Amino acid sequence: MKYVLPMLLLLCIGCKEQAQKETLAQFLTKGKFVDLSYSYSEQTLYWPNNPTGFKLDTQFNGITPGGYYYSSNAFFSPEHGGTHLDAPVHFAKGKWSTDEIPVEQLMGDAVVIDVSEKVINNADYQATVDDVLAWEKEHGQIPDGAIVLFKTGWGKYYPDAAKYLGTAEKGQEATAKLHFPSIHPDLASWLTKNRKIKAAGIDTPSVDYGQSKDFKTHQILYAENILGFENIAHLEELPATGAYIIALPMKIKGGTGGPLRIVAWLPQ
Amino acid sequence: MKYVLPMLLLLCIGCKEQAQKETLAQFLTKGKFVDLSYSYSEQTLYWPNNPTGFKLDTQFNGITPGGYYYSSNAFFSPEHGGTHLDAPVHFAKGKWSTDEIPVEQLMGDAVVIDVSEKVINNADYQATVDDVLAWEKEHGQIPDGAIVLFKTGWGKYYPDAAKYLGTAEKGQEATAKLHFPSIHPDLASWLTKNRKIKAAGIDTPSVDYGQSKDFKTHQILYAENILGFENIAHLEELPATGAYIIALPMKIKGGTGGPLRIVAWLPQ
Ligand SMILES: [Zn+2]
Ligand SMILES: [Zn+2]
Repeated sequence: MKYVLPMLLLLCIGCKEQAQKETLAQFLTKGKFVDLSYSYSEQTLYWPNNPTGFKLDTQFNGITPGGYYYSSNAFFSPEHGGTHLDAPVHFAKGKWSTDEIPVEQLMGDAVVIDVSEKVINNADYQATVDDVLAWEKEHGQIPDGAIVLFKTGWGKYYPDAAKYLGTAEKGQEATAKLHFPSIHPDLASWLTKNRKIKAAGIDTPSVDYGQSKDFKTHQILYAENILGFENIAHLEELPATGAYIIALPMKIKGGTGGPLRIVAWLPQ
Repeated sequence: MKYVLPMLLLLCIGCKEQAQKETLAQFLTKGKFVDLSYSYSEQTLYWPNNPTGFKLDTQFNGITPGGYYYSSNAFFSPEHGGTHLDAPVHFAKGKWSTDEIPVEQLMGDAVVIDVSEKVINNADYQATVDDVLAWEKEHGQIPDGAIVLFKTGWGKYYPDAAKYLGTAEKGQEATAKLHFPSIHPDLASWLTKNRKIKAAGIDTPSVDYGQSKDFKTHQILYAENILGFENIAHLEELPATGAYIIALPMKIKGGTGGPLRIVAWLPQ
């Protein structure tokens, strides 16, 4: 009996050692990835006053003189359309441009706040402090370093501009006809003062609602170097807690945002 | 004494339980991320015969009539320049385009094969099967699902075209003056037949060496839906084994490649 005790202790230490040596590849087999990004194409949605959308130019596609197949494109895109990053400098002079954002800021625990019931009869709904407090009552306080995502269910309309943006019209006047839900500036302000989040994201075109004229939520969040993730796809596949976000933008020097490839890892 | 045994068993089970419940966020605190991506700017290097490089157009930068700061750009880029993905369809008709690549294919254990000694006096060096076998002798067989990266040290020349590409000239004739090391087609062929890798990457402009006329390594790898990562930055910061790669490209529908944000996670 007196040998059993030290042996068990060794077993205990062994199991801890093994856990510490687990590789990231092994860890990730305990879950799955979900792609939260729309692809870029001529269907990609941009702000109505943006003179051009995404354009792919075929440079070559076919058999070369050398006898082998080859295809290659060039493309044009405004920074703010499709599933994309808002770098803080988009609305806050001197704050991070796209290339200046530390990689660690682009990853974190997902806090998914479901306001889809609230938007059903109100396309102009703005998520409130109460929505967040209700979430926290159920799931605990938003952890430091979280990426807070608002799930409106709007993704089901993408890329139908009339339904998703509120208007399929183009040009400056069309911006007055934008209707989609987002984040209230009072909530943005509360988040900057009371929680430590890395980014705020939404499954609509903007972190301010369609009818916003002053983009206060943008201004408030970005002044604190909090990132914005817009037009997130498939947000309905994420649970309220437990997902982990990895969001890697195209690294544009001096960019105010840009195409964002955002994925979630879900433990299973 | 008879109570100590069951209590220790409980402790053992407890420590295993705790290990299983560890979150990804907690796991990642045991290491650090390294960004392996160059930023896109007018300095970004493209193939000499590419008529245009990267271009950033400022759409707005200043104080709006509403009184708040705002900045926004649009950009133009060929798919193949800077730190970028080659989708298999770039050289293999019917294989994956950028948007068709499963997310899991974009992540994996890094195998870093150092050929920097071999290229010092030979800018036209092509990594061989022997280079891989020498690596395997020291580190074991390349694991299934690995991302195999060839470290030539060429990154120290980026973005000096004369040194990095072998020529700063532009146009079709300049392509004959390209000199940089890469992966021999015989090695590409061997890898497709003997190992199961997800991607091959290099810290030079191409998975074929500068003097290649038929891009055989491209053809061989991409026919098997193996991805190519080109112009990888800071490869010298990765160890031979132990790093984990996460490489998320801009999701271009029908793309033959595109801007790639590639990071490595290193356990510490
Ligand atoms: Zn934006
Ligand atoms: Zn390429």
